[in-house]
Amino acid sequence: MKQVQYSLSRWMEGGGPEAEIVISSRVRAARNIKDYPFSCLAAEQETAMVLEKINDMVLNKDKFADFIYLPMEDISELVKQALVEKHLISPYLAYESSNGALLLRKDEAVSIMINEEDHLRIQAILPGLMLEEAWQDTGYYDDLLESELDYAFDEQYGYLTTCPTNVGTGLRASVMLHLPALIMTGQINRFLGALPQVGLTVRGLYGEGTEITGNLVQVSNQVTLGHSEEEIISNLASVISQLIEQEKNARQGMLDKKRAELTDKAWRALGILKYAQVIGSTEAVQLISDLRLGYDLGLIKAVDHRLLNELLVLIRPGCLQLLAGKELEHNERNLERPIQIKQALDRFREKNQ
Amino acid sequence: MKQVQYSLSRWMEGGGPEAEIVISSRVRAARNIKDYPFSCLAAEQETAMVLEKINDMVLNKDKFADFIYLPMEDISELVKQALVEKHLISPYLAYESSNGALLLRKDEAVSIMINEEDHLRIQAILPGLMLEEAWQDTGYYDDLLESELDYAFDEQYGYLTTCPTNVGTGLRASVMLHLPALIMTGQINRFLGALPQVGLTVRGLYGEGTEITGNLVQVSNQVTLGHSEEEIISNLASVISQLIEQEKNARQGMLDKKRAELTDKAWRALGILKYAQVIGSTEAVQLISDLRLGYDLGLIKAVDHRLLNELLVLIRPGCLQLLAGKELEHNERNLERPIQIKQALDRFREKNQ
Repeated sequence: MKQVQYSLSRWMEGGGPEAEIVISSRVRAARNIKDYPFSCLAAEQETAMVLEKINDMVLNKDKFADFIYLPMEDISELVKQALVEKHLISPYLAYESSNGALLLRKDEAVSIMINEEDHLRIQAILPGLMLEEAWQDTGYYDDLLESELDYAFDEQYGYLTTCPTNVGTGLRASVMLHLPALIMTGQINRFLGALPQVGLTVRGLYGEGTEITGNLVQVSNQVTLGHSEEEIISNLASVISQLIEQEKNARQGMLDKKRAELTDKAWRALGILKYAQVIGSTEAVQLISDLRLGYDLGLIKAVDHRLLNELLVLIRPGCLQLLAGKELEHNERNLERPIQIKQALDRFREKNQ
Repeated sequence: MKQVQYSLSRWMEGGGPEAEIVISSRVRAARNIKDYPFSCLAAEQETAMVLEKINDMVLNKDKFADFIYLPMEDISELVKQALVEKHLISPYLAYESSNGALLLRKDEAVSIMINEEDHLRIQAILPGLMLEEAWQDTGYYDDLLESELDYAFDEQYGYLTTCPTNVGTGLRASVMLHLPALIMTGQINRFLGALPQVGLTVRGLYGEGTEITGNLVQVSNQVTLGHSEEEIISNLASVISQLIEQEKNARQGMLDKKRAELTDKAWRALGILKYAQVIGSTEAVQLISDLRLGYDLGLIKAVDHRLLNELLVLIRPGCLQLLAGKELEHNERNLERPIQIKQALDRFREKNQ
């Protein structure tokens, strides 16, 4: 599955609304088929039946002609890891599922995970602030699937799911934000305290339990029960728009006071990314953040969002090893990382000359 | 005096023996004319007489045809500062002398200072380990001058000088060393303690009272009384050769253990020097040291000693302002420094393509 390493997912192309702050918007719906045990509790035989049932319905259908079908057992560990790093599948599907499979739309904007914790996880991920669009994409495929499958649904609770936090609409919406100014000025702490009170969760780049690095913050709804889909999306969108406004103000404040320093930081980041011979992923993410901020403030023009998003993904262990074409130990990855970064920068420069 | 900013002094050209550790070798003789008061104690009228006497002897003489004559009162503060930064004159001559003047050989290897603390300071500075050669150069001009001037000389004490530490041979020999491995491993401390016991002094890049930065260390004889010129030179040369050997061993040890790290450090230094937009002189000197070590260990080839020496000088405030063509405040210098560094790197790359 070569395309995983070289193709950019739709969200990585950049260019959506508020792209100078919002990296991507993601919506996913959790669904289960009536009368089948939940995937994570089911025997292998039962998950195989679920997989077969969904496949019968989907494969060779015109409406899914632009999807590729990737059973987890057929793809290498590195390709799985790269799919996780590109936010196209969950770690659970990659490493813990029984008869797990992915239906991936060719532009890599829509992922339908089969036999994740739930029978179906329908996800759309788009660049910039496109929560509504991602919700519509998810809904479109949700409706397509529901037209042929009987979902487990309860009049009182809504869609039934494995994890209680997904019961109800089964909808999880999340936005990946680049918030260097709020983080550097410490203003982020105000939000970190307040967001849980309005039903939202803040996480690092790679979801639950990951630390905030590179000033990248993921904000998502905490529960799906007791709220309509509209409420979930609009509640998140409203908080995100406040975060965007605050981040813009904080950036303007920094720009007024520290223009030379920020310019220097961005250019140094580029210099180090171009010239370093050994580089860890945490440092790389931080340098990419410095460069991104410089670009978004108009202080450096030598990059663009597409390149910055590509760098963010290719420095991850799975993508890095796929690009290198071989498995690499931790230390070897720290030597390979600057090579792949340099190649991406060179490709960008050649294309833009 | 445009040549001060663009010309490289002979020592900056690089290429002497042990150039991977020894940056330059310098010897100077302090001399006074009999029956004239020492310059630093003399009235202005008296220093004027000394200046006139020496000029009569020197100017328009064939043997000094390759010298230029620079009275301190005729040259700008910036040019003076640049001459100090290039180690061609002392800060005393530049800023405190009365009727001070410089006779500078056009290759900038020999400086004859008039009305420094002493009537005459004859200095030769050469690249690499060339103490003998520098001593010979100094001796040559010392003899030339002595053939026409009556020096203040005492049978018992030798040459009489203003400062008691110069009485005797009046000879001060010093070597500028790049000792990153001894400094990084802390082995330097052994030497710092021992050198005064053998009559030697250790200083930073800009002499007395300056800190060691960029792993650059100046070692010179402490007193000149009670030792012959031969003893002074050979004592210093012997200690220097031990320092060189220890530094070589320490470098080999680092290379065996930390090749990737040292390569990375050198390349990052180059990246930052090329891309930074704001840079202070202390950081610049440290980066130049990292780059120099990488070059001397064969880990990076994108530079040479000539460029590294040029960088070491052009980042200093005086040279920097001369190159910029205007006076600059501290903050403005930190913005100008990376511009001049980048231009020097570009000139080097163009020349070596």
